[in-house]
Amino acid sequence: MAEIEELAAAVREFSRERDWEQFQDPKSLVLALVGEVGELAELFQWVPAADAVARFAVPDRQARAAEEMADVLVYLVRLADVLGVDLGAAARAKLADSHRRFPAATHRGVAPHKP
Amino acid sequence: MAEIEELAAAVREFSRERDWEQFQDPKSLVLALVGEVGELAELFQWVPAADAVARFAVPDRQARAAEEMADVLVYLVRLADVLGVDLGAAARAKLADSHRRFPAATHRGVAPHKP
Amino acid sequence: MAEIEELAAAVREFSRERDWEQFQDPKSLVLALVGEVGELAELFQWVPAADAVARFAVPDRQARAAEEMADVLVYLVRLADVLGVDLGAAARAKLADSHRRFPAATHRGVAPHKP
Amino acid sequence: MAEIEELAAAVREFSRERDWEQFQDPKSLVLALVGEVGELAELFQWVPAADAVARFAVPDRQARAAEEMADVLVYLVRLADVLGVDLGAAARAKLADSHRRFPAATHRGVAPHKP
Repeated sequence: MAEIEELAAAVREFSRERDWEQFQDPKSLVLALVGEVGELAELFQWVPAADAVARFAVPDRQARAAEEMADVLVYLVRLADVLGVDLGAAARAKLADSHRRFPAATHRGVAPHKP
Repeated sequence: MAEIEELAAAVREFSRERDWEQFQDPKSLVLALVGEVGELAELFQWVPAADAVARFAVPDRQARAAEEMADVLVYLVRLADVLGVDLGAAARAKLADSHRRFPAATHRGVAPHKP
Repeated sequence: MAEIEELAAAVREFSRERDWEQFQDPKSLVLALVGEVGELAELFQWVPAADAVARFAVPDRQARAAEEMADVLVYLVRLADVLGVDLGAAARAKLADSHRRFPAATHRGVAPHKP
Repeated sequence: MAEIEELAAAVREFSRERDWEQFQDPKSLVLALVGEVGELAELFQWVPAADAVARFAVPDRQARAAEEMADVLVYLVRLADVLGVDLGAAARAKLADSHRRFPAATHRGVAPHKP
């Protein structure tokens, strides 16, 4: 089984054992995801942009950031599972689409802008 | 290579080819992630909670949700890569930790609350 | 002075006294706003949609929600001030615009959808 | 009537005329708020932190940022109204509390950290 699918199965089983599926409707899961994204944002809010990579190379801070990103991923994977979406495939399809929409030749060094 | 690591490598290569690494400092990537989470939230905002799963089982809407979740995942994977974090390992560690913090026996049917 | 302008002046003075203006560039303020929105989302995440108003009528919970909304407002007002935006006027202009875009006669009972 | 209360009354009336109150439960309003915060974040995501104030001083971009901040405020004000919260009073109470928690003498030049 692919890694993301395995993770989805593990989170599903975790939720089932605790009878937590009743709480995990899509809107609630998006709100939970937002809560975790908020915690991730808080880690970086007052750090000077140019120092962020160096500061978060310190093991304790890296572990803290890893934890918040893990929380985001777990809820994202759970949401995809509840909606019957193959998240790994969707990400690969999106990347293939980005290759088409942003050819390297014409987009080198230019930040993408929403249409 | 594991799936998430492969995805990280593909996004890194995509960014490198376009010389977009200069834009992808952690704070910018968190803001980009927030933008995609916002698009995901918009899909669900006015849908009655109880209807969300059924409504998003319709292929067009499922594909739309899949796309927004893919965008979130791509930025999350990129952020982890920029910070040198093994996102898959972090998610598995987090889930193991949740097994310890929320024993099924005592947490069945009770929504978790932040301490 | 109008209420929002007064609030902006108070937050500006608070920041100046602590020499915190150096941290309050727009990207950092948006990340701080996201952090507070995350805390607000967490309050509601596992509450059944139909029970949310009743549950948050309980004084303690109402006070908690009020605090998180206040945090969001303070950062929003600060961001507007840093960008030289008259937030109250912008909100009134937006509402006037919504009156034009969503005539009551044609939009009664129909949730708005993004174009 | 104070400015924020007036704005709340105008948004309430707008919602009532369109029979949109049925969609505006707290969870839906938080998701709508998240959607608007996402649009705000997108404006700033790839802008170098040090250039953000100057770039958004250009009238068109300032108007765009003002609009997104207005959207955030309108949903925040609506959520507070639905929850029976006096948002202006809550913001002033929060600021008074911050004066106590962060005395200028000891916090000058030091970014606040969550406890």
